[in-house]
Amino acid sequence: MIETRVCKAFGLQYPIFQGGMAWVSDAALASAVSKAGGLGIISAMNADADYLRGQIRACKAEVGELPFGVNIMLMSPHADEVAQVVIDEGVPVVTTGAGLPSRYLPAWNAAGIKAVPVVPSVAIARKVEQQGAAAVIAEGGESGGHVGDLTTIVLVPQVADAVDIPVLAAGGIADGRGVAAAFMLGAEGVQCGTRFLTAVECTVHPNYKKKILAAGDISTITTGKRLGHPVRVLKNQFARSFAALEYDSSVSNEEIERFGAGALRKAAVEGDEKNGSFMAGQIAAMIHDEKTCREIITDLFAQADEVLAGAAKWVR
Amino acid sequence: MIETRVCKAFGLQYPIFQGGMAWVSDAALASAVSKAGGLGIISAMNADADYLRGQIRACKAEVGELPFGVNIMLMSPHADEVAQVVIDEGVPVVTTGAGLPSRYLPAWNAAGIKAVPVVPSVAIARKVEQQGAAAVIAEGGESGGHVGDLTTIVLVPQVADAVDIPVLAAGGIADGRGVAAAFMLGAEGVQCGTRFLTAVECTVHPNYKKKILAAGDISTITTGKRLGHPVRVLKNQFARSFAALEYDSSVSNEEIERFGAGALRKAAVEGDEKNGSFMAGQIAAMIHDEKTCREIITDLFAQADEVLAGAAKWVR
Repeated sequence: MIETRVCKAFGLQYPIFQGGMAWVSDAALASAVSKAGGLGIISAMNADADYLRGQIRACKAEVGELPFGVNIMLMSPHADEVAQVVIDEGVPVVTTGAGLPSRYLPAWNAAGIKAVPVVPSVAIARKVEQQGAAAVIAEGGESGGHVGDLTTIVLVPQVADAVDIPVLAAGGIADGRGVAAAFMLGAEGVQCGTRFLTAVECTVHPNYKKKILAAGDISTITTGKRLGHPVRVLKNQFARSFAALEYDSSVSNEEIERFGAGALRKAAVEGDEKNGSFMAGQIAAMIHDEKTCREIITDLFAQADEVLAGAAKWVR
Repeated sequence: MIETRVCKAFGLQYPIFQGGMAWVSDAALASAVSKAGGLGIISAMNADADYLRGQIRACKAEVGELPFGVNIMLMSPHADEVAQVVIDEGVPVVTTGAGLPSRYLPAWNAAGIKAVPVVPSVAIARKVEQQGAAAVIAEGGESGGHVGDLTTIVLVPQVADAVDIPVLAAGGIADGRGVAAAFMLGAEGVQCGTRFLTAVECTVHPNYKKKILAAGDISTITTGKRLGHPVRVLKNQFARSFAALEYDSSVSNEEIERFGAGALRKAAVEGDEKNGSFMAGQIAAMIHDEKTCREIITDLFAQADEVLAGAAKWVR
């Protein structure tokens, strides 16, 4: 059993968060992760207060007193209202992405909500710690969906040196070796997204799971760099067309944005293998089976225990 | 003391290679690394046989019977002749970059040279093992200079699973935490480039060292993706102009290649801070001092010993 400040601070059996993935991380997935001893997280994505309230209540009905969380995408048009819903519904943990949660932190802290921003750099980690974050998720660019430039092995130790609150590592963690590596770098927990996308309890379209399970090591590509918000997805017709448009300066950024609009929903809900945006981390290649959330978590930490316990063998 | 198959196979006190950096890794740096217990490596860059022969002999004069290596950039116009020089001069180890060394491996193996290709993917690692490579360097895209897409935490475990020969991890390794993480992922050694660029014995222009020491976490950028060979460099006027040209489809790839020609020499030899290409890995931000190669290596492994020895503390 691995026990860290992350277990204590968030009341978890295992120091692992499940990433808040738009169109993927719903009450079904989040409750399964929380019941397995990790922190299940519902994605508020771009949805409104009613959708999130429904998901939160469905999750509570499943997990009872167990902790769970909500991920708020700060660029969402409904960010303000969902930021209030997590207070009204007494959500214990909120993770944030796509920006600084500065204007929500005072109210969340007052309400006893533990805020855990996803951070792509040292400066942002320092800032959110000053503003009252309970922990930070240092996410490397090998992860899926919206990504930063720094990779996990580079970002985690620098963030761990910069802040006193616990650091969770995200990006590139597929098995117990990745968990053990994250701990060596200074993390006290991990967040996994892609790994849970293929969980039995994940309600994403079967074609999405199929594509993750079939992915090879060089199956992902990062698109959107020209627009200033790179996104890692599995290579397919949509991804190749998007990448080509970025290098065509006769095409405006607005046209490119329009081309990408709705593509994640096409992938996650419709399973459209040609026109969907199948967001996934580089470790998709290391996922070979559909397992329950409980199997995913217990296997991950059983291997991590073994690897960490054996680490001293290298030292003579 | 950490001892692995890499120490045994290459006769090293510490399982570390110094990266072969064009215009940087000369006999002075390579001999200092080898005398400090690692494997110093001379870069053959795009130079001819006479240059490399001179560097090899200068290195031998310094290291005596200690092992050292040569890095051959396979796209060099002089690749064939330098591939023969390493045989004629009895170089013990050859690392290769920018392609598959297939056509040289039989002769190198016949000559007793240990070949260690830098690999960016699982398929290439498997191929070079079949062709007789003694080990592989799994290099993540966070490293400096020419980079692949997969990052260290994702590439190393997949390569370790795919081959039986020892795997060295490269990319993102700045201190003992990075070394320990690499071991957790399945590596039995590491290769560091940027860390040695600021070594006292490194003869690169002082402005280059100054820029590495001043770098922050988000100071690097990857350019050249459009050309099919991305390169990680420190942000400066040259890098920004190059990146802008890539998104201007009225500019041909040939024009962009011409724009970049000679820029690394400008950085490493002339110290031209505006027009030079200062290749560096993301971990430049973690390098705060100029140390001797001996200090770099002993500090790296003293911390790695400590971190690895303490790994079991997480397991309750």
